[in-house]
Amino acid sequence: MKSESAAIDIPESSSVAKGKAPLIAVSRDEKGGYGKGIAIFDFILRLAAIATALAAAAAMGTSEETLPFFTQFFQFQASYDDLPTFQFFVIATAFVGGYLVLSLPLSIVGIVRPHAVGPRLLLIILDTVALTLNTAAGAAAAAIVYLAHNGNPNTNWLAICQQYGDFCQKVSGAVVASLITAVIFVFLIVLSAFALRRH
Amino acid sequence: MKSESAAIDIPESSSVAKGKAPLIAVSRDEKGGYGKGIAIFDFILRLAAIATALAAAAAMGTSEETLPFFTQFFQFQASYDDLPTFQFFVIATAFVGGYLVLSLPLSIVGIVRPHAVGPRLLLIILDTVALTLNTAAGAAAAAIVYLAHNGNPNTNWLAICQQYGDFCQKVSGAVVASLITAVIFVFLIVLSAFALRRH
Repeated sequence: MKSESAAIDIPESSSVAKGKAPLIAVSRDEKGGYGKGIAIFDFILRLAAIATALAAAAAMGTSEETLPFFTQFFQFQASYDDLPTFQFFVIATAFVGGYLVLSLPLSIVGIVRPHAVGPRLLLIILDTVALTLNTAAGAAAAAIVYLAHNGNPNTNWLAICQQYGDFCQKVSGAVVASLITAVIFVFLIVLSAFALRRH
Repeated sequence: MKSESAAIDIPESSSVAKGKAPLIAVSRDEKGGYGKGIAIFDFILRLAAIATALAAAAAMGTSEETLPFFTQFFQFQASYDDLPTFQFFVIATAFVGGYLVLSLPLSIVGIVRPHAVGPRLLLIILDTVALTLNTAAGAAAAAIVYLAHNGNPNTNWLAICQQYGDFCQKVSGAVVASLITAVIFVFLIVLSAFALRRH
């Protein structure tokens, strides 16, 4: 009985020395376990988001197709920088991928110290901004890709995917990758909200 | 000295009776004040977001222009439902506006009970989804509006805003309103994250 009460006392006194933990030792241990699990899952999701964001930027950035015939005046060629929306997509998605890489240290801080509120709060704010940027790039590119596939008879914008099939396929893949990134971001924000709640 | 210690004791014992407040009475009062302020600001921001979201949906939904001349074959007319992206914009933005109206009761619960975690957590999750939907609609419409203004010589998509100036102006206004809604949503999510942290 004496040794058991000592075993309970030791973590409590050490946490008081750090000056941050709540007073009830049992509930603190419970919360720590949840927080760490959420932080590890956050880290894994971030790795997945890096993969999809950089894949989207790379696929869009390398999308290019030259048709095997040409007229006297010009060669038929399609590239992502023919369309400003696709340029924006490459820049924004690469930016989001870079942010995700830089956010990994903060995510690791969340694993090491599940109770630290500051990094978690910073992550949720930056994630929200990155989600907005990523969604805007993906949706704008999706609108243009839809137009490239289907055209629009009302405005006399003709579909170009009959001619530039490979280009359209690659661009569509980039858009899909970007929308997957957006879904991962939503999960990241929800996870962070749950992690914040546990304090 | 005696009366002062009694004044400190009274809120502490009443909070223990509710069974939810932390043990240190002073910090609890501080937290309650912040939480209520955040909740009221959240409610006001939500009212602003309702206004911009519904204005965006209404402006886009009523955008229509008939040119004052016609050929033998057809009359020149532009309307939002000529372009699928604009249709999506109207539906998504009206949906977001409806969600915002329905979220007001939850926001009021946050004002009445600043310590309730459940409504706050539900709001942050739904807000994130609504932000994504709203941003997607706004960005997609922005891409098409840009095309309508400037055209794209590489794909032979001609600008239509020379002919349909009023239509373009109304549509651009709707896009701007939708992007303002997105900014308000980012603030709402950040506010909710701060409110969650205070528990």
